[in-house]
Amino acid sequence: MKRLLSILFLTFLYLTAALSQDKLIRVGEVPGYVTLKCDFHMHTVFSDGEVWPTVRIEEAAKEGLDAIAITDHIEYQPNKEYISADLNAAWKIAGETARKKNIILVHGAEITRKMPPGHFNALFIEDAGKLTDKDFITVIREAIRQGAFIEWNHPGWKAQRPKGDAHLDSIHKVLLANGWLHGIELFNDIESYQGVLTLCIEHHLAVMANSDIHIPYETGYYPGSTHHRPMTLVFAKDRNEKELKEALFAGRTIVWYGDSLAGDKALADPFVKSCLTMGPVYCESEKYCWREIINNSDILFEIVVKSDDKLSDEPLKVSLSPNSITRLRLPVSLASRFVCTFTNVKVSDNVALEIISFFADSDLTIP
Amino acid sequence: MKRLLSILFLTFLYLTAALSQDKLIRVGEVPGYVTLKCDFHMHTVFSDGEVWPTVRIEEAAKEGLDAIAITDHIEYQPNKEYISADLNAAWKIAGETARKKNIILVHGAEITRKMPPGHFNALFIEDAGKLTDKDFITVIREAIRQGAFIEWNHPGWKAQRPKGDAHLDSIHKVLLANGWLHGIELFNDIESYQGVLTLCIEHHLAVMANSDIHIPYETGYYPGSTHHRPMTLVFAKDRNEKELKEALFAGRTIVWYGDSLAGDKALADPFVKSCLTMGPVYCESEKYCWREIINNSDILFEIVVKSDDKLSDEPLKVSLSPNSITRLRLPVSLASRFVCTFTNVKVSDNVALEIISFFADSDLTIP
Amino acid sequence: MKRLLSILFLTFLYLTAALSQDKLIRVGEVPGYVTLKCDFHMHTVFSDGEVWPTVRIEEAAKEGLDAIAITDHIEYQPNKEYISADLNAAWKIAGETARKKNIILVHGAEITRKMPPGHFNALFIEDAGKLTDKDFITVIREAIRQGAFIEWNHPGWKAQRPKGDAHLDSIHKVLLANGWLHGIELFNDIESYQGVLTLCIEHHLAVMANSDIHIPYETGYYPGSTHHRPMTLVFAKDRNEKELKEALFAGRTIVWYGDSLAGDKALADPFVKSCLTMGPVYCESEKYCWREIINNSDILFEIVVKSDDKLSDEPLKVSLSPNSITRLRLPVSLASRFVCTFTNVKVSDNVALEIISFFADSDLTIP
Amino acid sequence: MKRLLSILFLTFLYLTAALSQDKLIRVGEVPGYVTLKCDFHMHTVFSDGEVWPTVRIEEAAKEGLDAIAITDHIEYQPNKEYISADLNAAWKIAGETARKKNIILVHGAEITRKMPPGHFNALFIEDAGKLTDKDFITVIREAIRQGAFIEWNHPGWKAQRPKGDAHLDSIHKVLLANGWLHGIELFNDIESYQGVLTLCIEHHLAVMANSDIHIPYETGYYPGSTHHRPMTLVFAKDRNEKELKEALFAGRTIVWYGDSLAGDKALADPFVKSCLTMGPVYCESEKYCWREIINNSDILFEIVVKSDDKLSDEPLKVSLSPNSITRLRLPVSLASRFVCTFTNVKVSDNVALEIISFFADSDLTIP
Repeated sequence: MKRLLSILFLTFLYLTAALSQDKLIRVGEVPGYVTLKCDFHMHTVFSDGEVWPTVRIEEAAKEGLDAIAITDHIEYQPNKEYISADLNAAWKIAGETARKKNIILVHGAEITRKMPPGHFNALFIEDAGKLTDKDFITVIREAIRQGAFIEWNHPGWKAQRPKGDAHLDSIHKVLLANGWLHGIELFNDIESYQGVLTLCIEHHLAVMANSDIHIPYETGYYPGSTHHRPMTLVFAKDRNEKELKEALFAGRTIVWYGDSLAGDKALADPFVKSCLTMGPVYCESEKYCWREIINNSDILFEIVVKSDDKLSDEPLKVSLSPNSITRLRLPVSLASRFVCTFTNVKVSDNVALEIISFFADSDLTIP
Repeated sequence: MKRLLSILFLTFLYLTAALSQDKLIRVGEVPGYVTLKCDFHMHTVFSDGEVWPTVRIEEAAKEGLDAIAITDHIEYQPNKEYISADLNAAWKIAGETARKKNIILVHGAEITRKMPPGHFNALFIEDAGKLTDKDFITVIREAIRQGAFIEWNHPGWKAQRPKGDAHLDSIHKVLLANGWLHGIELFNDIESYQGVLTLCIEHHLAVMANSDIHIPYETGYYPGSTHHRPMTLVFAKDRNEKELKEALFAGRTIVWYGDSLAGDKALADPFVKSCLTMGPVYCESEKYCWREIINNSDILFEIVVKSDDKLSDEPLKVSLSPNSITRLRLPVSLASRFVCTFTNVKVSDNVALEIISFFADSDLTIP
Repeated sequence: MKRLLSILFLTFLYLTAALSQDKLIRVGEVPGYVTLKCDFHMHTVFSDGEVWPTVRIEEAAKEGLDAIAITDHIEYQPNKEYISADLNAAWKIAGETARKKNIILVHGAEITRKMPPGHFNALFIEDAGKLTDKDFITVIREAIRQGAFIEWNHPGWKAQRPKGDAHLDSIHKVLLANGWLHGIELFNDIESYQGVLTLCIEHHLAVMANSDIHIPYETGYYPGSTHHRPMTLVFAKDRNEKELKEALFAGRTIVWYGDSLAGDKALADPFVKSCLTMGPVYCESEKYCWREIINNSDILFEIVVKSDDKLSDEPLKVSLSPNSITRLRLPVSLASRFVCTFTNVKVSDNVALEIISFFADSDLTIP
Repeated sequence: MKRLLSILFLTFLYLTAALSQDKLIRVGEVPGYVTLKCDFHMHTVFSDGEVWPTVRIEEAAKEGLDAIAITDHIEYQPNKEYISADLNAAWKIAGETARKKNIILVHGAEITRKMPPGHFNALFIEDAGKLTDKDFITVIREAIRQGAFIEWNHPGWKAQRPKGDAHLDSIHKVLLANGWLHGIELFNDIESYQGVLTLCIEHHLAVMANSDIHIPYETGYYPGSTHHRPMTLVFAKDRNEKELKEALFAGRTIVWYGDSLAGDKALADPFVKSCLTMGPVYCESEKYCWREIINNSDILFEIVVKSDDKLSDEPLKVSLSPNSITRLRLPVSLASRFVCTFTNVKVSDNVALEIISFFADSDLTIP
């Protein structure tokens, strides 16, 4: 057996050295902070997931994440005939791989109840084994005592709320009143929930996006390299667990899934601006000029340029592809200064981000 | 809990209906048989693998396989602190998914010993729990009693045999003499072993290719869609477990990994011919003609056309890409009949398949 | 110069042998015919296109087409300052490459007029130089005299018909009355036109789909390997120009673009059936069974399974991906026989193809 | 006709606005300069190429280049039966598209002679029509009079020099002695030439890499998105034609093709360093630590880490994939400071770039 172990160890070394090529995800920044790419909701064989805990770390590293939480169900253990009931097992098992892969592994668990109240993740906990009381409030009190960040999961999950919306029941108001609710999922798996962003901004909560993944990442929901899992982008003072926790409690997050972003305008505005660089303007006539917009990020932006210029009857809609240079032909009145709306960046439930002025007028030359 | 279960069930129905789009792998055939695409060596959390047994079925279906065996180590259980020691657990758990996905799940286990004898898979067994004796021969006798097909795994694994070759030690000769060895792996994971094909042909054993995969399929060794796992291609009278077993004991297999094939010429020759269709010949002059070769399969073939014609000083080397039409410009002497060697199809350790005549002469017209 | 020519020739030989790997497009068949994949509308530098005529042949071969027509504008020659006005030049230049690549090159030209009548391709002509009269009907008479097949191009092109529909003006009725109109484009580039299929069925014309491509194929409209150009699928008695022409005049075509097909039901029904194979049925209970559907083609099919069974409240919608195996979980009443609608296969302007019975009842076994 | 023109113009506007999504190529920098990605050798229908001149601009923009030269053969015009003999035509035709796409279009031509002297590009010329004298030296004098940069093309082209090397014949020494040679191609199409880098460094010439492309870019030599054409990377004071010319005459270039780079160490060293960021080091034991290396560029780097440490018997070879994070497990002696060789970056014909110290010691913490 010793021999086998040493063989396995050698193989691991080899693979680690040769194959540990992880993706570099390019997103924006908010001045003064580093952007941590996070997923705080996923499962393993220790509840109803289908992978060993180490797999979640490997997947996260491969995709370029900075932090994850494994959040197996406390109350739902369909594999218990074959699997230990230790509620901290996944966290313990994944720790060494997390350190090797430089992934911040947040200790978490999913409190799994009928709606109301629904499902909640307790993050940054000390011991999931103490979160097993039948009474929901008792469990929340214990989690809070452990210093937990409480996240309301999929508040409009149709299985629990057929209309799919995210309204507050009385139990949720109790949580808010006591300061026992710190974040809400706007994106979960392939779903999103109307109302969450407004709730988060109003109550100063962190808006969250998580995968809630049960199966292997690439076998499952997200085929190919063009898609990515829902991510909570956290603006932290440094890349470590302490600052991650500080930033989450301070609500400094925006969310990203598919081609959609959402978050408070105070964060979304500088974040989006940091993704884009304005290239030169060059004019072909007295009426029309060209503008280059360089998208330095892995995020696609959908913009609509507003105009009351007679030369452009319709609003100009353009997709700025990730890592691309786009050349816009604009009436000269717009070439030096335009107001544009980022239709795929929500700053409240029904309002898209608007950015008034990217350009300095000085860089415009008309031939 | 009931509610949660019913929710999960509903979700499963939805996913099954909507997402069960599995790959259609196009390989050749041998007249009188169906070709079953198989992988008889893989692991789960029940030994040192990192996935739940159902994942192996989902992966196999997604990739277009017909049959797999889950072969967790009998003697090596690094997860036993958290996982049941039931050696038949993976097989029991994966059964329902296998039925839904129409995958033939062979009951198997890996007998894991130092070299000699090394590692062996017992396939088509009744109870892995009875294969635990310290004495290797006692275990083999019990497996044979259960009706098992015995496969020698990675006979040249460098961790056990630093030179990487596949020679017989005395214990292996004992197995052969008693009829207790039925197949040998030529391909395992990314490795291949010199000598295996010769051994298999000489002793009428099935040549095998398996993944020995431990981690999730797509997260791991096989990035992207251009690669595929090692596959044992079995020529069976029908697509069911009984005929699969009959074909394996009869040694009717060839192996495929990457762009390499290997097997007995009696099988490889009709298999390769069934992948290719000769298109029309059309001549551009009295000296040169064009030949179309249509590769109807997902297999790439590397061919070298032999010639003593003065017009072609060098042998003509061509890769016939999967699912492609290739047009060859040939001296007229070769257009109607050529001898070509399939350099990526081995029919013994050092001999590539040669095919003398694809074409009927009658279809040649010189302008 | 001689030396340079021989060098270029050698290089060409090398490239031809090594790189001529063209795509094998898998589509269906209609019994008694071969399916020719065709594009009868494209441009070169000899009108307002941007490639040399040989490029159109190379592109067609690479994509797996059987036949094309180069149809440069007769009346529009923006490059004439630099380019010869010989209206047959593109056809003459591309001929040799067409023969080497085994592509049927149809001699064609585009008669380019304001609407009405609009633009028309004359195919299978003898001399485009004789189609230059100012009077449209005079030109058509001459084309007919040459034996031409007359195709009405993009009859709902918004630049000429702002509403985008394909109605008949009096000039078009004259063409029909005289037997001078033989086909109409339903798909052109990325457009499609309401009304065309009904017109074609009513007047026994060939429905057509063409690219009308001006720029290099892969630099342009059709990025990546997942898209294909609009194709006219012609059901001919053999793969040669004579039978292609016979089939077109007989109206034996259906059209394919993106994920859409359209054509007369008499052709579309056997064509679609030939793309699909029904796999086994296997039942999980007395209520539900599984059905495998194998899509052997490169065409995606969208189906809706109809049911009045209580077990399935909603119609079951499934996409059958190209080259895939789909497993459907069905109420037992549907497993042996179902009516399904192919929503992406139109058999008239507003009617999708319906196929009543794929299955023999005999292959159903309930456990 | 007016109407048709206006229609075409409208279409062009639409396409320009919607589709002008060009690739952002990420390469390194040399302090004080911008890096211009250039290809100074390509053909159109005006010599033996197969595309209209505007296509070369569209292709260059799409791929993210900054500057190109169209260099049709002066002495070889196989299309002259159909095409104007105006040697400046391609340059005149492509100009407007170049301005719209913000591509610097260098006026060039290829002087096409037997070896010796071989083929030469004259770049930044005024009039290719004056470079037609039979005497090679007379043509060079005229090009120099026009201010041309003279590049020696494919000096080891096997068609002209069967051994494939790049030695100087007496005529080349005459060019050098007179200051009439300013750059040499190290990469041309898929070829490279031994000796070029040494010649360039010794004689202070610009090392060049160009495509010499004749056919459409994507139909041709460079399939898929993973490959890129040979590029000359020019370090210019600004992105305009004047500074491009200054930088070329000053020899401030390195070359990039496939996964190979080559250039003077004074440029290659800062260029490579600017592509890579050292991430944190974190130690798993007193013996081993992990090092993150972030490759921010689209360039793959192959490195070998040197060591005399007993813990690593073999040199550690790693590929740093484009846009990736690599984690290296290193003996602690190497974690804070290592010498590594970039085996795919040549700084002379036979010497790879070596970089001694990336790291500050201070960021190392041993647990």
